[in-house]
Amino acid sequence: MTHTPNPSYSFTLRCELDNRPGMLGMILSAVGAVGGDMGHIDIVSADRRIMVRDITVNAIDERHAVKIVDQVQSLLGVRVVNVSDRTFSAHMGGKIEIANKISVKTRDDLSMVYTPGVARVCLAIADEPSKAFSLTIRRNMVAVVTDGSAVLGLGDIGPGAALPVMEGKAMLFKEFAGVDAFPICLQTHDVDEIVATVERISTSFGGINLEDISAPRCFEVEERLRERLDIPVFHDDQHGTAVVVLAALLNALKIVHKSIDEIRVVVNGMGAAGIACTKTLLAAGVGDIIGCDREGAIYDGRTTDMNPVKQWIARNTNRKGVRGTLHTAMMGADVFLGVSAPGVVGVEDVKNMAPDPIVFALANPEPEIAPEDIYGCARVVATGRSDYPNQINNVLCFPGIFRGALDCQATLINESMKKAAAKAIAEMVSSEELSEEYIVPSVFNRQVSDAVARAVVEAAMATGAARRPTVRLHPSARAKE
Amino acid sequence: MTHTPNPSYSFTLRCELDNRPGMLGMILSAVGAVGGDMGHIDIVSADRRIMVRDITVNAIDERHAVKIVDQVQSLLGVRVVNVSDRTFSAHMGGKIEIANKISVKTRDDLSMVYTPGVARVCLAIADEPSKAFSLTIRRNMVAVVTDGSAVLGLGDIGPGAALPVMEGKAMLFKEFAGVDAFPICLQTHDVDEIVATVERISTSFGGINLEDISAPRCFEVEERLRERLDIPVFHDDQHGTAVVVLAALLNALKIVHKSIDEIRVVVNGMGAAGIACTKTLLAAGVGDIIGCDREGAIYDGRTTDMNPVKQWIARNTNRKGVRGTLHTAMMGADVFLGVSAPGVVGVEDVKNMAPDPIVFALANPEPEIAPEDIYGCARVVATGRSDYPNQINNVLCFPGIFRGALDCQATLINESMKKAAAKAIAEMVSSEELSEEYIVPSVFNRQVSDAVARAVVEAAMATGAARRPTVRLHPSARAKE
Repeated sequence: MTHTPNPSYSFTLRCELDNRPGMLGMILSAVGAVGGDMGHIDIVSADRRIMVRDITVNAIDERHAVKIVDQVQSLLGVRVVNVSDRTFSAHMGGKIEIANKISVKTRDDLSMVYTPGVARVCLAIADEPSKAFSLTIRRNMVAVVTDGSAVLGLGDIGPGAALPVMEGKAMLFKEFAGVDAFPICLQTHDVDEIVATVERISTSFGGINLEDISAPRCFEVEERLRERLDIPVFHDDQHGTAVVVLAALLNALKIVHKSIDEIRVVVNGMGAAGIACTKTLLAAGVGDIIGCDREGAIYDGRTTDMNPVKQWIARNTNRKGVRGTLHTAMMGADVFLGVSAPGVVGVEDVKNMAPDPIVFALANPEPEIAPEDIYGCARVVATGRSDYPNQINNVLCFPGIFRGALDCQATLINESMKKAAAKAIAEMVSSEELSEEYIVPSVFNRQVSDAVARAVVEAAMATGAARRPTVRLHPSARAKE
Repeated sequence: MTHTPNPSYSFTLRCELDNRPGMLGMILSAVGAVGGDMGHIDIVSADRRIMVRDITVNAIDERHAVKIVDQVQSLLGVRVVNVSDRTFSAHMGGKIEIANKISVKTRDDLSMVYTPGVARVCLAIADEPSKAFSLTIRRNMVAVVTDGSAVLGLGDIGPGAALPVMEGKAMLFKEFAGVDAFPICLQTHDVDEIVATVERISTSFGGINLEDISAPRCFEVEERLRERLDIPVFHDDQHGTAVVVLAALLNALKIVHKSIDEIRVVVNGMGAAGIACTKTLLAAGVGDIIGCDREGAIYDGRTTDMNPVKQWIARNTNRKGVRGTLHTAMMGADVFLGVSAPGVVGVEDVKNMAPDPIVFALANPEPEIAPEDIYGCARVVATGRSDYPNQINNVLCFPGIFRGALDCQATLINESMKKAAAKAIAEMVSSEELSEEYIVPSVFNRQVSDAVARAVVEAAMATGAARRPTVRLHPSARAKE
């Protein structure tokens, strides 16, 4: 976990202070003395005797927060009357809502958006079902579907506890690309039931974003839904990660002047992300990949801890048949891609790689190796974290890729579209900007999703995935700001 | 169907006119000559030679609209360059969208609404699942669920074509009570599959509004979902109608000075609405009800065209064992309630009722008998239409009843809550206002949903249906205007 105070553990103290000089300074010193990071300070009310202030403090974790509160509470002339956790406050009542796009203030409005006028729209769709993609929310609505089985780093916390994450995902869809997204948290872990349920509710949606479903079920769920539905089905943990990894790799290779078809890549972690990254890198032209899991390299003929997906990996990668541990596999590799667990890579492993090693250590929140340990020996380092350079964050991909898919009414998101998205993300970093510490654009670069969407539409049209022959891009969320 | 021009058949003509005096007047005359009703007239552009105008016209139906366009097109010096249907325009891209309740503009925002901060909220819910009702969209989100089998008067048009109606319903929830609602259109008519699907997706919702599911499946779907879920399940076509009918009846009885336990009511139509109205009227104290269907009165011992729900009706109504046609059943009745088909009641039938007949002819859009035919012989007449007095419209009930249920985190909507809602609606018409032509409040009376919500919360608390012991009512949509 991070060890600096941060806004995810931010809280607001409401304090009654004796109204005399020096009180606020005393509180600031007390908070600082136990390592708290001061934020906003507001005056709530004041009279001659008492001043009420709201003081916002960032802490490291909950224990740290309690320590800070205790410290403030112990001060003479200070009474803490309330402590509110800002993250919990932000979640009260949910983070998203439904908004009407047109008003319903008069009888005329009512007769257009509801009966009797709506009947003509219904009949038009009954007559020609594809009209639902222009006359209903299908035009712009994605379902964010989970079963709560692999949520963040928390594991199988169930569908109810996963809902805040899915709401957050919906917010990012809207904020970064103007895509409407609705969270569907399923009370089942059964593949057949997940597939049947999503198929039955798919009528309201123009796309399905699968989220935080554990491997290997996620592969089958996605594959079967892709077969059954004529709208894009995209497991973001797999393909979102793979697209951003490919984008980062394309730029990292420019720095080390290596060609994608010459490099050897070691992928550690054969979960959803690892498998998808491997497939995407193969499709992008990487010839030599070695996949590793807890048992080490995966090779054709390995018999322990295999499953159908790993069998596929064994047959399609590791052309030299390397066996042994991750450490063995990494010897001479050009790129290490970790989507696995904290601390599994040592400094020696990086030193044993080919010259100018590229290390993507994406385990979250603790990477496979701490970047500070290998600055100097690794040429390019990326993580999943926002507090190091080169953050590999799916938000660079999923809003734009769905924006593009919805704009051209794509029937699926294919490899060409993903590759186009990766290229578009990579190209957001100009050759002047490109450096070891800047291989992917910032998640807050608002041009990324538009660029991705445009590239995805072009690729969809070129590959026959677009239902809509000519396309005018819809303005993304930005247009509303 | 209605025979006057109305906004549900409204369209906008974009015309290029020779720019000389009298042109607009010529168009107005031409539209008027074929019975069109002029709306807004806007100037789009003008130069010395040509003026471009947008002219909005209400028509009776599509054929009428074509006739009007042809008429305008035939005028010398006028070129119709575009005709846009305003109802279709209002539906472009769907009528609702997702909105973020807080912004995601900075890294700090991101770390509170998404990773890493969101993890603490997830864990709090995993630890105590009921916290989802305060920390997620469950607090205020209702699913509007249909299988598209009985949509408006259109019948089984399927889930895709039903979506515009469900979006419209969601708009009304938001507009009239600040309730967030999301349309779920199911690709199945199978009761087991509907129940299983709704149960699996229920995690994202604080209530389920069933809509436009055909009888008798709708009864089983609702009953089984009520058993399985601990959130309100409410089939609006049944209970929304029943609540508003009861409200209207309570007020109509004040006018005719009859007591609810003395009257005889004939209910014609044993679909979803008819059955629910019968049950609600029984619960409200009506002792003598005769249910009728196409075969006439339903009585204990009838063998033709029965089903389990009609068997229940046969055992629990018609205490005198009346047999025969609807016309026979209506003789001497105090109240006729039609939720059936156009024109099935004659003037003679109304004349054969008890003194001061109350006639609720709710078939839509054509009532069981035209109100103008019985003004004079019926004392109080209500319909489902907005162009006659006394419109029985579910929008008086469902927004407020769900507002109340969500506010107190009700586990269900029980008979007490429905009865309280009906009383609250009835009481919105003061004794000074009450008259034969004003027995229910206007659908645009914004105080109705708040009054209903308050009454529903009280009833829920009194009957143990409220999960939340003390309640502060959430501001409804109005607060945002």
